[in-house]
Amino acid sequence: MAELFKAFTVEDARAALARHLPVKKQGLKLPVLESLGCRLAAEVRATEDVPGFDRSTMDGYAVRARDTYGATESLPSYVDISGEVLMGQKPPGRLGAGQAWRIATGGMLPAGADAVVMVEYTEKLDESTIGITRPVAPGENIVRKGEDVSAGEVVLPAGHRIRPQDLGMLSSIGVTEVEIIPPYRVGIISTGDELVNPSERPAPGQVRDINSYTLFGAVKACGGEPRLYGIVRDEYDELKSVLELALQENDMVLLSGGSSVGTRDVASKVIDSMGKPGVLFHGISVKPGKPTIGAMVKNRPVFGLPGHPASTMVVFELLVAPLIRSGSYPVSEKESLIEFPLLAEITRNIRSAAGREDFIRVRLLSQDGRLIAEPVLGKSGLINTMVQSRRPGLHTRWERRG
Amino acid sequence: MAELFKAFTVEDARAALARHLPVKKQGLKLPVLESLGCRLAAEVRATEDVPGFDRSTMDGYAVRARDTYGATESLPSYVDISGEVLMGQKPPGRLGAGQAWRIATGGMLPAGADAVVMVEYTEKLDESTIGITRPVAPGENIVRKGEDVSAGEVVLPAGHRIRPQDLGMLSSIGVTEVEIIPPYRVGIISTGDELVNPSERPAPGQVRDINSYTLFGAVKACGGEPRLYGIVRDEYDELKSVLELALQENDMVLLSGGSSVGTRDVASKVIDSMGKPGVLFHGISVKPGKPTIGAMVKNRPVFGLPGHPASTMVVFELLVAPLIRSGSYPVSEKESLIEFPLLAEITRNIRSAAGREDFIRVRLLSQDGRLIAEPVLGKSGLINTMVQSRRPGLHTRWERRG
Repeated sequence: MAELFKAFTVEDARAALARHLPVKKQGLKLPVLESLGCRLAAEVRATEDVPGFDRSTMDGYAVRARDTYGATESLPSYVDISGEVLMGQKPPGRLGAGQAWRIATGGMLPAGADAVVMVEYTEKLDESTIGITRPVAPGENIVRKGEDVSAGEVVLPAGHRIRPQDLGMLSSIGVTEVEIIPPYRVGIISTGDELVNPSERPAPGQVRDINSYTLFGAVKACGGEPRLYGIVRDEYDELKSVLELALQENDMVLLSGGSSVGTRDVASKVIDSMGKPGVLFHGISVKPGKPTIGAMVKNRPVFGLPGHPASTMVVFELLVAPLIRSGSYPVSEKESLIEFPLLAEITRNIRSAAGREDFIRVRLLSQDGRLIAEPVLGKSGLINTMVQSRRPGLHTRWERRG
Repeated sequence: MAELFKAFTVEDARAALARHLPVKKQGLKLPVLESLGCRLAAEVRATEDVPGFDRSTMDGYAVRARDTYGATESLPSYVDISGEVLMGQKPPGRLGAGQAWRIATGGMLPAGADAVVMVEYTEKLDESTIGITRPVAPGENIVRKGEDVSAGEVVLPAGHRIRPQDLGMLSSIGVTEVEIIPPYRVGIISTGDELVNPSERPAPGQVRDINSYTLFGAVKACGGEPRLYGIVRDEYDELKSVLELALQENDMVLLSGGSSVGTRDVASKVIDSMGKPGVLFHGISVKPGKPTIGAMVKNRPVFGLPGHPASTMVVFELLVAPLIRSGSYPVSEKESLIEFPLLAEITRNIRSAAGREDFIRVRLLSQDGRLIAEPVLGKSGLINTMVQSRRPGLHTRWERRG
């Protein structure tokens, strides 16, 4: 029956798949404003300095720093107001010794000036003279030409996922179009004689399809493009023809079990009939998630995910999500199980069997600034355990418990 | 000039705005598959039990538990294989004493049975008899009718943001359409005589507009619907007519400074001319982010955000993001500054001035399972400090430093 294959660890499973990765995608050009959340196909370099000139970071007066040295409240340095910098314009001329020009935040520093005195540290003597009550050093209250970005600098690396501030960065250097890696297209096939569509009323013995819809959301949440192929009976020819179609139209296919042995056996036979290398592993030493199939068919990953809703989500997070997010698995195996681990205190002890990794659903709470993880107990067949969890996958590995 | 108003704390600012909140939105019906990331306008109740019948969670045999009591490997309990449950079908008849029916994971338990024996704990004697080598208790390896969801139960509360597993939950109870709160429409106006569009080449004294694009991304990342109104000069009539249009077409408007005093003064005059209550505060005791304007005009929040890119993002996170995400501020002020605080170890000491809250940009690293926050130093006028930060807003409040 099922577990003829050696049960792989998550690391074994990733390594077996990694020999056939990454899943490569042709780049696609997009306007910057449409690129939020996309990954860059190539690095972006600045072709000019930002800012293009020395700029004031305060409202006040542009000066020569040396004219302010020694200034105090009781003995201010007096300078002449002899010019004004208008926003967005080049200052008309050069600032001379003993002079101060009015300047606002963001204004261009006049030639000859090397610092800005904040308006708070000046007192107006008359219309044309101010006293400076505190000295400034050269460069004070100024952003230098090229201080934010220098011409030639790589501002964003290839593979980077574009965040809001990156849109600002790209705009600042005049980039209005970027080449991105298009989202992974992921076909989702539900298998199982007991399943009906959500819109149908299940007869005794039938249940509605849960996993297709959970996976649809999970793929989307990772930045992928999910496509549903409906429910397929546990029948070799039917599954084969739907799988072939899904492989033509997508970069990756998920078979959402069918929790029974029968379903899994049909799935693995169909996959193996479609070309090399076919099934790479069948069964992983993870709870929940043991009856997982991993395969490569026609250069595309195919996963047979377990039927229990919680198991499907855990295995999705471990083996499928990294591929959709980046086309490959993280290189550091140590940190890779969960991409950005959150440390939390667990509210009760949990034991795990030797040689198996257990993933416990938890509810995350914030108490007095500490993160508390409260295990959500319940069978992995219950979707409600996932709904009550903030995120799947607190990772308790037996070896670490000593 | 500017800071005539008392500088508000973040809590003061939220309280002043909260008197005019929440921003209410009419519900909108959507197919479940399009609702990922949306917030529910009303709670969702189950109208039936899930599953609708007792189900097996294992591949094995349905039995009466009492027929297995006392079974051991050396002295198995023998029972007759007298039926089979087909997936998706009602078992044909009733299981009697001393009987076992073949059943797969997910199969419907026959009447008369109260437990399932895993196939691993059975040995086949002949075609019609098995020996059970380990006893089961009533209910073992079974999910009971209604154990996942009971008819009448609230499965998702109003206001809940829909995650992948919630799509599965909704499907399981036959809900194919949900009523959601439509995304907040947010108008974004850039002000400042020094700004040009990203596609233009800045002349000396000019810089490209960064904040419109950063805010566009930030609004989207919170689930809002951003709309750009371009760059407006620091001119009363021009700003007023664009702001009026933006207020008609959106639920909220962001004026992205214009970092100079001149810009801020024009903005606050225009806002105050448009109706009560107008400007609620002008200046908050936060670094970066001090020159922030908060207002309510025509029942819509209007924010004048500071011109420096880092300041804009910090203030956005503190005052704007919660409104886009949920229409109001979290009730618990204690935890509200950052919605889900992450605890990390900072790599160096940072001091803050008394009576001011400092927000330090950090790079988050994961080292040996610990979160490390490495401050990204640099002026708040540099977009690059945000690009190098994993997230804005490690919160170091002076009072806490003792």
